[in-house]
Amino acid sequence: MINKLVEKIQKMNAPIVVGLDPMMKFVPEHITKKAFEEYGETLEGAAEAIWQYNKGIVDAIYDLVPAVKPQIAMYEQFGIPGLVAFHKTVEYCKQKGLVVIGDIKRGDIGSTSEAYAVGHLGKVAVGSKSYYGFDEDFVTVNPYLGSDGVNPFIKVCKEEKKGIFVLVKTSNPSSGEFQDRLVDGKPLYEIVGEQVAKWGEDCMGDSYSYVGAVVGATYPEQGKLLRKVMPKAFILVPGYGAQGGKGADLVHFFNEDGLGAIINSSRGIIAAYQQEKYAQFGGLNYAEASRQAVLDMKEDIASALANR
Amino acid sequence: MINKLVEKIQKMNAPIVVGLDPMMKFVPEHITKKAFEEYGETLEGAAEAIWQYNKGIVDAIYDLVPAVKPQIAMYEQFGIPGLVAFHKTVEYCKQKGLVVIGDIKRGDIGSTSEAYAVGHLGKVAVGSKSYYGFDEDFVTVNPYLGSDGVNPFIKVCKEEKKGIFVLVKTSNPSSGEFQDRLVDGKPLYEIVGEQVAKWGEDCMGDSYSYVGAVVGATYPEQGKLLRKVMPKAFILVPGYGAQGGKGADLVHFFNEDGLGAIINSSRGIIAAYQQEKYAQFGGLNYAEASRQAVLDMKEDIASALANR
Repeated sequence: MINKLVEKIQKMNAPIVVGLDPMMKFVPEHITKKAFEEYGETLEGAAEAIWQYNKGIVDAIYDLVPAVKPQIAMYEQFGIPGLVAFHKTVEYCKQKGLVVIGDIKRGDIGSTSEAYAVGHLGKVAVGSKSYYGFDEDFVTVNPYLGSDGVNPFIKVCKEEKKGIFVLVKTSNPSSGEFQDRLVDGKPLYEIVGEQVAKWGEDCMGDSYSYVGAVVGATYPEQGKLLRKVMPKAFILVPGYGAQGGKGADLVHFFNEDGLGAIINSSRGIIAAYQQEKYAQFGGLNYAEASRQAVLDMKEDIASALANR
Repeated sequence: MINKLVEKIQKMNAPIVVGLDPMMKFVPEHITKKAFEEYGETLEGAAEAIWQYNKGIVDAIYDLVPAVKPQIAMYEQFGIPGLVAFHKTVEYCKQKGLVVIGDIKRGDIGSTSEAYAVGHLGKVAVGSKSYYGFDEDFVTVNPYLGSDGVNPFIKVCKEEKKGIFVLVKTSNPSSGEFQDRLVDGKPLYEIVGEQVAKWGEDCMGDSYSYVGAVVGATYPEQGKLLRKVMPKAFILVPGYGAQGGKGADLVHFFNEDGLGAIINSSRGIIAAYQQEKYAQFGGLNYAEASRQAVLDMKEDIASALANR
């Protein structure tokens, strides 16, 4: 799957992933109204609204980007109906040829981590049969519990030729609280980065490992360092756009081959019609606004990479 | 909810939580057979089997222990049907008067962490209405992302009078890989523990905070230290029994008042009938074996506390 991701990025010239993190306040009124008419103001109604909203965006952008990243929390908040919408979104995106990165930030130990891994990337055994649960292509993983937590994911990745992105340096303001603490003179995120490189060594695709990393666009200097610490790890970079990261900040996350990073934008794309810049599209044409925002983001990143 | 937990622990003289972490290999044949006859060897069949299995255990133990801790990964691996079984289990346990600790180990940033918090502890808004998603009483939270990840949970805890247990020092062998690294001469888990104490300061119940911690029974020395670092934090202690922790290891996790810790056992209770010690019960009477295992665990812990 890492090979497929690399190929699609090259073919589309777009190291970009669109974060499908729907919030009710992003969903245009005509969609919410129709969903509530059908299901009432219920969890099912909310789930229908975010699913229809997602579908519109995916239809408008699937030919421009290699991948999407649904954030499961935004679905899980609506309980079971929300998770049904998550599952439908994953399935629909895969039908459209998109690589799906499940932003689930799971992490536990032993058989528990294995359960998350089979539920999201692999197949679970039921009697003599086996079934995919959510079936994303990649997921994000929290490393705080150490190798016991990550190895079960790697095992499933090898079986399924899928991948993970391990949280190394997250994009939020307080990420330094623990991640920046100095251990033997090195920040903890560097120690985690070194471990990501090790975990990835024996599950290589053609040029990059199945084991990637998450490093926030908001920390370009740290990205520069981590790029060198984990040369074979693809870096998933959140924090572009709404969180403050800019195209020029991103060049250090890429390798000399122009690869090695994929930049996420969520609300900057999916709620583009709510920005002044794209307001002329209006709520009815929200998906076209998202398409335009993707085109603009592609140009911003391509020009930043050309000028480095 | 922390007050309710403390009261129930005192009333039942049982600082014990039963981990409802069903694996198909634990489920007795008569239950699996019936579920597969009704639903086939499907995800629905597996979900029905673990739900009926749970129900039998809960009916057998609800009068002996204050709390249960369903591990969501064990349900999530069966996709949507598995999560429906999780939700049914949470609801059923609450009907039986049990405090429910959702072992979900979630953690993200800002609005995303808030979505997890409202989905598991609070109510999500849908138009003019609002709904509980999974509605546990407590959840476990991963601190790697810092205060941005934890504060949204604390906000919901204050609104709902619920609580969280933050991962500090986990019970697994490789937990030291990052958690034990020395920062200014102190292990990282101590730094996290100090932060747990701070987070908990302004959301106190009568004697303990809504913000608790997870510290593994397998690390009694660290437990002793962390007990002092976070005097007002209730400590959820996994790793007793199957993972190697013993009653005598546990005394240091308690305060002088005999409170402040709740010890989890999962497979040691729920799959007791598969141990030689309880084999005479057989699969048909698996729930009675679980009841006996709870009684034995209560005695082990009470005698350890009496002898300290």
